[in-house]
Amino acid sequence: MQKAVVLLSGGLDSATCLAIARSQVFECYCMSFEYGQRHAIETERAKDVARALGAAEHRTVGIDLRTFGGSALTDDIEVPKGGPADGIPVTYVPARNTIFLSYALAYAEVVGAQDIYVGVNALDYSGYPDCRPEYIAAFERMANLATKAAVEGRKVTVHTPLIDMTKAEIIAEGQKLGIDYSMTTSCYEPTPSGQPCGLCDSCRLRAKGFEEAGLADPLLA
Amino acid sequence: MQKAVVLLSGGLDSATCLAIARSQVFECYCMSFEYGQRHAIETERAKDVARALGAAEHRTVGIDLRTFGGSALTDDIEVPKGGPADGIPVTYVPARNTIFLSYALAYAEVVGAQDIYVGVNALDYSGYPDCRPEYIAAFERMANLATKAAVEGRKVTVHTPLIDMTKAEIIAEGQKLGIDYSMTTSCYEPTPSGQPCGLCDSCRLRAKGFEEAGLADPLLA
Repeated sequence: MQKAVVLLSGGLDSATCLAIARSQVFECYCMSFEYGQRHAIETERAKDVARALGAAEHRTVGIDLRTFGGSALTDDIEVPKGGPADGIPVTYVPARNTIFLSYALAYAEVVGAQDIYVGVNALDYSGYPDCRPEYIAAFERMANLATKAAVEGRKVTVHTPLIDMTKAEIIAEGQKLGIDYSMTTSCYEPTPSGQPCGLCDSCRLRAKGFEEAGLADPLLA
Repeated sequence: MQKAVVLLSGGLDSATCLAIARSQVFECYCMSFEYGQRHAIETERAKDVARALGAAEHRTVGIDLRTFGGSALTDDIEVPKGGPADGIPVTYVPARNTIFLSYALAYAEVVGAQDIYVGVNALDYSGYPDCRPEYIAAFERMANLATKAAVEGRKVTVHTPLIDMTKAEIIAEGQKLGIDYSMTTSCYEPTPSGQPCGLCDSCRLRAKGFEEAGLADPLLA
């Protein structure tokens, strides 16, 4: 079986992404990050998701993005709760996906994977620049000049199966693949026990997705 | 004064790179990494270099590349001492420069720098793929699609002032800029007190550089 590295956040997008990678018959090496995010429950959920979906391995890497600051997800900047505003929101974390994908690239080279899955989405998303298809294509091009593996002919492909899907389509696909979304978390600022706030952009996108998919969110059951 | 982020390893190349950035009148924000390397004395030397060359700030980021393994610099793989061999050596660390530059990109965005300096060199070097000009160009292109700063028009430039220089030229340039190279370390496997082995590829390149520059290495004085 071919190996793939899958970035797993504990959210519903990356869980669906892992289920898709598994359905495409990859042996999956999952990677999550503790980056000083407010919503540290993410990495717990990621562990559950990896186990439930039959990942071969799951590693959590600690990286301290608080060293840099500059984001409502890692700093004392307030998480907006008033609904989506124009422009890139304050929940943007500087270079986050670039750092995550760079680690994924290292992990892929070491385990001998030529496929990386990342659940970015450029439709029902928060407007982050590092979720756009042109960014992903540029990362892949750079990656294939970066590594010993690539130089020796083992190039990587960065898969973004969700990139053109609406949140409702992602949820419907995950449902079809049998994901129990009660394992996942989406809220930027959950309560200590893991309850979503229901008001941040991420909660709103999730709610809209379930509604449009005609399904109830098992997290709220 | 414009700000620049400078990657600093404690070696002579990155020290020269910092001196060049300073001479081009940048206020320099230096970044070093503790990545589980055998030669941890590097980060001590990097601190000295940053101070001596008047850096505005110096941050050391701990990242555990040993999680992945796959390199003689982080694992129990023997560092070759018999002189350069063909191909990419076992001292290659998977995706190292990609991870380092990704952190530099985050740091640049947070401090408001649009210039990143990295002392890679594609002439007297160890054959690492992530030191080549085509790799650096691809990284810069990706970086300018990755960040909020770039989307808002504040694009970054990745400067590689040493890329076409021989080791002798680098040393001569540093000498001209007044660098005291006794502060720097190059060895892949120094003794606990910091003495170079004299036999690894990095020691050999350094010795050849000083010899061709007609100078004595102050580290060996």
